[in-house]
Amino acid sequence: MIKITLPDGNVKEIESGATPMDVARSISEGLARNVISAKFNGTTVETSTPLTEDGSITLFTWNDDEGKTAFRHSSSHVLAQAILELYPRAKLTIGPAIENGFYYDVDLGDQTISDKDFKKIEDKMLEIARGKHDFKMRAVTKQEALDKYKAEGNEYKVELIENLEDGTITFCDHDTFTDLCRGGHIPNTGIIKAVKVMSVAGAYWRGDENKPQLTRVYGTSFPKQKDLKEYLELLEEAKKRDHRKLGKELELFTFSPRVGQGLPLWLPKGAALRERLENFLKDAQKKQGYEMVISPHIGQKELYETSGHYAKYGADSFQPIHTPNEGEEFLLKPMNCPHHCEIYNARPWSYRELPKRYAEFGTVYRYEQSGELHGLTRVRGFTQDDAHLFCTPDQLDEEFVKVIDLVLYVFGSLGFENFTAQVSLRDPETPEKYIGDDENWVKAENAILNAAKAKGLNYVIETGEAAFYGPKLDFMVKDALGRSWQLGTIQVDYNLPERFDLTYKGSDNELHRPVMIHRAPFGSMERFIAILLEHTGGNFPLWLMPQQVTILTLSEKYENYAQKVLNLMENDEIRALIDDRGETMGKKIREAEMQKVPYMIIIGEQEEENGTISVRKHGGEDLGSMTVDAFAKAISEEIATTMKSFEE
Amino acid sequence: MIKITLPDGNVKEIESGATPMDVARSISEGLARNVISAKFNGTTVETSTPLTEDGSITLFTWNDDEGKTAFRHSSSHVLAQAILELYPRAKLTIGPAIENGFYYDVDLGDQTISDKDFKKIEDKMLEIARGKHDFKMRAVTKQEALDKYKAEGNEYKVELIENLEDGTITFCDHDTFTDLCRGGHIPNTGIIKAVKVMSVAGAYWRGDENKPQLTRVYGTSFPKQKDLKEYLELLEEAKKRDHRKLGKELELFTFSPRVGQGLPLWLPKGAALRERLENFLKDAQKKQGYEMVISPHIGQKELYETSGHYAKYGADSFQPIHTPNEGEEFLLKPMNCPHHCEIYNARPWSYRELPKRYAEFGTVYRYEQSGELHGLTRVRGFTQDDAHLFCTPDQLDEEFVKVIDLVLYVFGSLGFENFTAQVSLRDPETPEKYIGDDENWVKAENAILNAAKAKGLNYVIETGEAAFYGPKLDFMVKDALGRSWQLGTIQVDYNLPERFDLTYKGSDNELHRPVMIHRAPFGSMERFIAILLEHTGGNFPLWLMPQQVTILTLSEKYENYAQKVLNLMENDEIRALIDDRGETMGKKIREAEMQKVPYMIIIGEQEEENGTISVRKHGGEDLGSMTVDAFAKAISEEIATTMKSFEE
Repeated sequence: MIKITLPDGNVKEIESGATPMDVARSISEGLARNVISAKFNGTTVETSTPLTEDGSITLFTWNDDEGKTAFRHSSSHVLAQAILELYPRAKLTIGPAIENGFYYDVDLGDQTISDKDFKKIEDKMLEIARGKHDFKMRAVTKQEALDKYKAEGNEYKVELIENLEDGTITFCDHDTFTDLCRGGHIPNTGIIKAVKVMSVAGAYWRGDENKPQLTRVYGTSFPKQKDLKEYLELLEEAKKRDHRKLGKELELFTFSPRVGQGLPLWLPKGAALRERLENFLKDAQKKQGYEMVISPHIGQKELYETSGHYAKYGADSFQPIHTPNEGEEFLLKPMNCPHHCEIYNARPWSYRELPKRYAEFGTVYRYEQSGELHGLTRVRGFTQDDAHLFCTPDQLDEEFVKVIDLVLYVFGSLGFENFTAQVSLRDPETPEKYIGDDENWVKAENAILNAAKAKGLNYVIETGEAAFYGPKLDFMVKDALGRSWQLGTIQVDYNLPERFDLTYKGSDNELHRPVMIHRAPFGSMERFIAILLEHTGGNFPLWLMPQQVTILTLSEKYENYAQKVLNLMENDEIRALIDDRGETMGKKIREAEMQKVPYMIIIGEQEEENGTISVRKHGGEDLGSMTVDAFAKAISEEIATTMKSFEE
Repeated sequence: MIKITLPDGNVKEIESGATPMDVARSISEGLARNVISAKFNGTTVETSTPLTEDGSITLFTWNDDEGKTAFRHSSSHVLAQAILELYPRAKLTIGPAIENGFYYDVDLGDQTISDKDFKKIEDKMLEIARGKHDFKMRAVTKQEALDKYKAEGNEYKVELIENLEDGTITFCDHDTFTDLCRGGHIPNTGIIKAVKVMSVAGAYWRGDENKPQLTRVYGTSFPKQKDLKEYLELLEEAKKRDHRKLGKELELFTFSPRVGQGLPLWLPKGAALRERLENFLKDAQKKQGYEMVISPHIGQKELYETSGHYAKYGADSFQPIHTPNEGEEFLLKPMNCPHHCEIYNARPWSYRELPKRYAEFGTVYRYEQSGELHGLTRVRGFTQDDAHLFCTPDQLDEEFVKVIDLVLYVFGSLGFENFTAQVSLRDPETPEKYIGDDENWVKAENAILNAAKAKGLNYVIETGEAAFYGPKLDFMVKDALGRSWQLGTIQVDYNLPERFDLTYKGSDNELHRPVMIHRAPFGSMERFIAILLEHTGGNFPLWLMPQQVTILTLSEKYENYAQKVLNLMENDEIRALIDDRGETMGKKIREAEMQKVPYMIIIGEQEEENGTISVRKHGGEDLGSMTVDAFAKAISEEIATTMKSFEE
């Protein structure tokens, strides 16, 4: 008998040689039906692997990431078998699980796979899957392994095996198919109920462009047909909501090869959107006593040597800017904090004057390799909605609560209702990794935890994840497609006040170090707008829409009335424009739909005669005829619901 | 007889040997009384120089720059004589006229001159001046000149003479004093009625720190005692209004050696001031159909090669920024126009969509030698209130008028009532120096001239002063101290549309080049705020003041009433703050005065009882007791007078 410890701490005694599936069965038949993968003593095993020593077990279902990985890895075996049956001269190379699916790289020789072949491959895969073939691992000697693939003429597998040590080599068999494999499968092919070949692409063997080019076949698979359908719909929706696509359609931003990659140029509508978001945050910040400052986009190298950033990141960053003769060296600023420390340092402070809260929409520049750049989410220049709070240690609690209030207000006003928080604390076992005295760390960590509790945040604690300079609180939001994004961050910092020798005079008339809080509710304007675009599909909350109403005239006869309606809208601070082009009403509506204008007012003879307007909502809903006053009142109320004014 | 041509083209026949003073006398006795200097055939001469050939003459009075130079140059002779009489062992070196005065560098040996000696020197100068000694030029041989100074043991003058050619050397005599001199004096010392020794400083012989150190005595002089008095008062006022001093006192901006010289850090009050100015301009621009855009602070080197800026300025600018591995090169942007051209280029345009007016408060970076930096007027990073208008050639007239309207609105709202304009046109004799076809130049120059006339501008035309890419219109304002500053500029550009291949589709369905207008009413936010500070002494127009009212409580008993008054102010959008510190009223008023707060409300028992406030104006005027409503109404009216809303 051996002792198997379960994740909840319970210990099961089972016979040596029993499998993880036996363990599952001993717990419940339901679990046994759902278990598809397992870990034993920290190592991935098959559900059929005999257990012969004491140890800890974790059992995975489709709902676990590890379960999904085993499912997709197993699916790639099925894909490989299907390809071999359909393209017998193909040579297999490697085929791992990836996020949302798997791929297999194959050398097809003179054959090709095109999208017309996908259905054929999928059908073959499903046929294999339906056979409910068990996945069975088997140890082989290096020689056996080499013999198999040399006989097949597969130089790729031979190369892989030559780099492995004898005694560690295993094959996986299912049905008539065998592959070199380290293990980690689901019990049998029958669990795979839905498959989809997603795409084919070229890929070099071992990623080396001097080596042969292979065909990479991407696929995905699910335990239910319904799951696949949902996934494909999500993909379709994500493609429609791609912020790069929407950014172009809505004329928000552009990139220019001459200006440089990763350096967005904000077009008028995008700049107006940014300004609106910035003013929204500025207004709330003002109520919390923030003060705006402005700092340059460069600083002497010495500034970043003082802050420690140069030593840490200098080599991988944009390189120093030299001057023609005076031998000076400047750096593009990668963050605003050193500048704000120097602003704080411009005069002495008394504890009575703290906290100081310096805010700046500060544009920073960070070098990213061109291959890493992506739309507005990964850029080389971006604007942080940055602020640095300088306070006494005793003020930390209150300041932290206020910052959380602000972050929650921002998320609420922008329709991100689904978010979680992560509190990153220091690892108490390695105090040498952190700067700042113990008492202050306790204060800071308690400040964060108390604030998180007081605000009823849904948070997880990650011990050891604090920065070396202080603990932090990060906010993760889920967008409309269920994808997680890290947005706002709040960080406590004991390091920069030390390095910049920041002080204030305490009530004891002695000099003390202030504590610094870095915070950015949006994170960066670029990234936030990208996420907001994908979250809303461009249908921003009404208060944020650059154009809230479009007034469409049936013909030029109604221009005067349209102008009158526009003036009434403007009196109520509703952002409206007239479209009086001589285009058909159908075309004008289509274009307003494309531009995501929330409300369309249609004006013709009847409206002018009755002094009314006809209103159509974005998406097509007809709200019928009403007076301008009634409409303006309704829209103003809707704005007030989507953006409440920030109250302390 | 010789023929003398006067500046107005008239020709006078006079006897050969007559002097410029004779010419003046032949015109009028009044002129003769005022003439103090002259130019003949382009060369400075004495008013007593005999004229012996035909030529053109210009006669100068104190009101001409040339007259002032002669006056101050002559004064330095008087200063030198005074010094020699008071310090007989002194050795004279050189003593030129400078802006607003003159100096003389002397080797005093073991003697010194301190500010206690200034009065003595001034008295001696006035004593000499009163002698009405004529300044008389006399040619000497090099040997004679050397003999004189060798005899005196003055090695400096000897060195100067040794570098001169025999036959070109002249002395100037007056009274008992003789100096080596090229000429250019007023008729006699008697014209100098007021003198002032301003300061002494150290100066190396020939500016070379390896050579002997001399004493530089700075002085100034005037034809009337009253002029000197006014000048000294102006100096005193300018010192008080120095924007660097006011910027520190009002906590507007600071510099940090670690961030780098010439890179201002805007403190909260300064950032708020800037934001207010920017919003003021934004509002007016919006009414004229401008659209805001946002562009990065760097661009690839290629961008500036395209624009031509790199070839022209690259070597003297901040040097390129390299990336760690991809071999890219970026430049800090020295101007926004190339970025705006790329924004224009983001999509095709029809003539029906023009003009496009892209505006950005764009921060640019230009390398200046550290010795050239000065407060906010000469910096290395500054924010332009930039805009670029892209229009058809036919739209140029109207756009130009609109830009002038905007500039005049800006100047008017900021209290610059005294300004002149300069129209810079091409030199029609050197067409090869300019880009763009003749027809467009004619259009553009006419657009500027017509607009300047239509707006009734007080302008001068400078032919040949146009940029190679187009004509321009610059605005010069006079500040409260009578000093001239160049502020707004409007420039037409045919070059960048060509270089960036900008196009629009015309009504003929063909592609055409738009014309580009660069314009910046403020010029740069930094420089403008510096000038505004010196112009107003920190007493900005009421609408612009960061804090318009301070509410001072006589004791903490009146805090509630003060809060009520504050709320009433805020309802009327008047920017007020309460000062309820436990300081004396005297101290609180002094500090509010220092901060230039325009209105102080004083609250005590009587005010609370009567529901009134006592109001005191900046500067001390007591406006007595009134209701909050009456005060709010008066102040709102004052704001409306200082800043009218911009109307098209």
